[in-house]
Amino acid sequence: MTRVSEDERAADSTDRVPVLLVRGDREYLVEPGGEQGTDLGVLEVPEDVQSGDTIETHLGDEFQVRRLRGPDLFHHFERTGAPMVPRDIGLVIGETGIAGGDRVLDAGTGTGVLAAMMARAGAEVVTYEQDAEFADVARENMALGGVEDAVDVRTGDVLEDVDALEPSSFDVLTLDTADAPAMVEHAPDLLVDGGFVAVYSPFIESTREVSKTAREVGLSDVTTRETIQREMQFDERGSRPSTAPVGHTGYLTIARNE
Amino acid sequence: MTRVSEDERAADSTDRVPVLLVRGDREYLVEPGGEQGTDLGVLEVPEDVQSGDTIETHLGDEFQVRRLRGPDLFHHFERTGAPMVPRDIGLVIGETGIAGGDRVLDAGTGTGVLAAMMARAGAEVVTYEQDAEFADVARENMALGGVEDAVDVRTGDVLEDVDALEPSSFDVLTLDTADAPAMVEHAPDLLVDGGFVAVYSPFIESTREVSKTAREVGLSDVTTRETIQREMQFDERGSRPSTAPVGHTGYLTIARNE
Amino acid sequence: MTRVSEDERAADSTDRVPVLLVRGDREYLVEPGGEQGTDLGVLEVPEDVQSGDTIETHLGDEFQVRRLRGPDLFHHFERTGAPMVPRDIGLVIGETGIAGGDRVLDAGTGTGVLAAMMARAGAEVVTYEQDAEFADVARENMALGGVEDAVDVRTGDVLEDVDALEPSSFDVLTLDTADAPAMVEHAPDLLVDGGFVAVYSPFIESTREVSKTAREVGLSDVTTRETIQREMQFDERGSRPSTAPVGHTGYLTIARNE
Amino acid sequence: MTRVSEDERAADSTDRVPVLLVRGDREYLVEPGGEQGTDLGVLEVPEDVQSGDTIETHLGDEFQVRRLRGPDLFHHFERTGAPMVPRDIGLVIGETGIAGGDRVLDAGTGTGVLAAMMARAGAEVVTYEQDAEFADVARENMALGGVEDAVDVRTGDVLEDVDALEPSSFDVLTLDTADAPAMVEHAPDLLVDGGFVAVYSPFIESTREVSKTAREVGLSDVTTRETIQREMQFDERGSRPSTAPVGHTGYLTIARNE
Repeated sequence: MTRVSEDERAADSTDRVPVLLVRGDREYLVEPGGEQGTDLGVLEVPEDVQSGDTIETHLGDEFQVRRLRGPDLFHHFERTGAPMVPRDIGLVIGETGIAGGDRVLDAGTGTGVLAAMMARAGAEVVTYEQDAEFADVARENMALGGVEDAVDVRTGDVLEDVDALEPSSFDVLTLDTADAPAMVEHAPDLLVDGGFVAVYSPFIESTREVSKTAREVGLSDVTTRETIQREMQFDERGSRPSTAPVGHTGYLTIARNE
Repeated sequence: MTRVSEDERAADSTDRVPVLLVRGDREYLVEPGGEQGTDLGVLEVPEDVQSGDTIETHLGDEFQVRRLRGPDLFHHFERTGAPMVPRDIGLVIGETGIAGGDRVLDAGTGTGVLAAMMARAGAEVVTYEQDAEFADVARENMALGGVEDAVDVRTGDVLEDVDALEPSSFDVLTLDTADAPAMVEHAPDLLVDGGFVAVYSPFIESTREVSKTAREVGLSDVTTRETIQREMQFDERGSRPSTAPVGHTGYLTIARNE
Repeated sequence: MTRVSEDERAADSTDRVPVLLVRGDREYLVEPGGEQGTDLGVLEVPEDVQSGDTIETHLGDEFQVRRLRGPDLFHHFERTGAPMVPRDIGLVIGETGIAGGDRVLDAGTGTGVLAAMMARAGAEVVTYEQDAEFADVARENMALGGVEDAVDVRTGDVLEDVDALEPSSFDVLTLDTADAPAMVEHAPDLLVDGGFVAVYSPFIESTREVSKTAREVGLSDVTTRETIQREMQFDERGSRPSTAPVGHTGYLTIARNE
Repeated sequence: MTRVSEDERAADSTDRVPVLLVRGDREYLVEPGGEQGTDLGVLEVPEDVQSGDTIETHLGDEFQVRRLRGPDLFHHFERTGAPMVPRDIGLVIGETGIAGGDRVLDAGTGTGVLAAMMARAGAEVVTYEQDAEFADVARENMALGGVEDAVDVRTGDVLEDVDALEPSSFDVLTLDTADAPAMVEHAPDLLVDGGFVAVYSPFIESTREVSKTAREVGLSDVTTRETIQREMQFDERGSRPSTAPVGHTGYLTIARNE
């Protein structure tokens, strides 16, 4: 991945990032300078469009311009599978402290929401996706998310590339693949001192294997957590947890290189 | 808050951010150019110190240099109360999509870990703390976290200042105060279209009031969730949730301005 | 309630309790000596029918005879509302130690599954139901459950009858009504020393009121618990909690008279 | 196990069951006709003692007489290990519908609280304990619980005895042993039609094996649930789940023979 200078990134973040055009339930993600057909007419988006502007279709209907936010990615990214939910992405970011200047190695990309949200929080991400078609979709999603310069989507198996990756060159390693344990073995080599691994795995058996491997290769503070969320219901009768709760997504294992 | 140019921030992030000096259990957070006394001798930190360097005390013991990561803030920030835990900070960031370029209004600051982690993910944060001593500690914490230019800690009651805040000037509003409902009333005015409010509240009664107010002032997608986490135990006998689980922290209510 | 002698109860339990006639998905609850029409012909049930017998319809199709078990009540009782689920009935029985010889005061009856299951575990139950039609259905359900002699279904408001109830005459008080707090006030008078109150309430506000009242009237060991259950999924991919978990039912508050 | 006639059991339940003698924090479990030394003097318990009576020590201090309740067993039984908690016993009773007339096969006995509580709800229980000393303690516990005629504590491995047990002679099979899967294989033979197996197991691996075996031998409605309970805290600040919740105990697998 070519390093992006601060100047280029500053330019990106003001010039080329797609914006949301919203009118009631209608919502389009369009690049500055682009054009969008709608059932209410055509929208032409100026190059210098700003959040807060309004744009009229050629038939005179107004749309509001908004900056894209992380949760919007779930609705606008093309899906190649079930993307990690905002809650779990938040847990990865909170537990590893993803921040500006971080270099993250991610596998597998999938829809790419995790990679995009880490990039939006300032990380440079190298992400591996074995399925070539999925990788293509993920690249398009990165462009939609305005993070194509910060996320390098590579087609292939990260395990085959691992020897070519520079040692101690990543701050965080995020894994959402069936063979996560094999990759965890390389974490001590790939991570800087104090770097984190975060592994998301739906099943307990693979989670156990991840935890075991993390301990065996000498990572510290190895912790696996299951997260249960309940939506609360407030109505005139009173307050209670929802009778239709959020289900299991995955176990999250966090470990540190130190 | 004075806007910081991209150049200055780039400079900040390489030049003046404190680094961690680590040797076994010993861990010090020191500014480049600074000096730190330890029981193993004095550490002098060069101005151009880099993550991955090693520094010797004047007695010849080596410390490793690390970049500070978000979870480190919990150990190095001076506490003026129980800080929000990484899990809940992650949930706020994940559900609101905190990212580079965001302007966040936060109340109350407390220890300041949430504000610092949002700043580290690229946000400019204005945060209010009513207790003047706590606010002073928070300012010192922001310096320790290398985000003093991105976080404006204001002493006072945000409700008294609210009329002076520019309308539609914030992307996200984060509240961890007893009078959060009164502040939620102002969310539609203060937030840009598509902006989020996130309210963290330990008790159900205040949470209900927050949810009710959010609906009344016209915010959409008002959702309150309780998060239960269980640490998993893996040993030779088998796998199971911990018999000593993580307890309740707070309810998190998220709503959107649209 | 007229006390039932042990002899009469022994007679009840062998002579008149309905039995289940089962063939594949077909399942009928019939009294000994009774007759049941089915799409496979008529079943005549001998007076001395025993669990384990087989009975043929007049067309020659065999049904197996089974003793009725508690969980069967959920399928065979006529419902006048959502009955308490086996899990919550079990929690009431486990936490209060329902056993042979117990005298239980129950309000409100509803479908009557809790009353029937406590009676089947040996308790004599007086249960109040304000809705006269619901009370009639509950009485029929008690006959179906073979516990009509052990459960006295009374139509009316237990609060209006409370002065007529003999002091210290109940071992356990079970409440599943909106005005449970008012009834908890009488618990110290109605319960024997060491007796229990169990209150099931879906909303937190009424639960709080129940807990507060229990403390105010001097009950001890006042404890409210919320129960979350997750069904586990085991398949060839691995083991995990269900992605479609069991939702909230109610808070259970237990307190003791001592 | 010798069958106990209804007359004998009626006699048991009024004549010989130990009663609790209570004064403030002092609590003794004594048989009718027995004698109990205390720091306040000697208590002589009449043969015809009744719940609600008061008894004076020879020094004139009054104790109240109470019937023993299930939850009291946890405090008065001698422990040979951690007994199953009231919550889990309640779940077993609720999900299997333990009731008068049930014949239950239980392994392993342990402290014997589950066996005693099922007996108190009317079941006749045969329970196996491999450790001879533990079995002796369990027998004494059954006497303390007033259920020595209803619970047959056998020393040994139920798997070695299984061929000698009469087919289709049990209504419910309760297992809390490491080799539960091997015993589940025999469930279809040992249980009556419509009978239940309940297996309590702390670890997911053995739970999975139990579930798999139950399906393989043709049991129906095989369901494993994990139960999470949170104690609620109510104070002047508001209501919330406890910050120190109840931990994991075990997974409960229920299956039916049909």
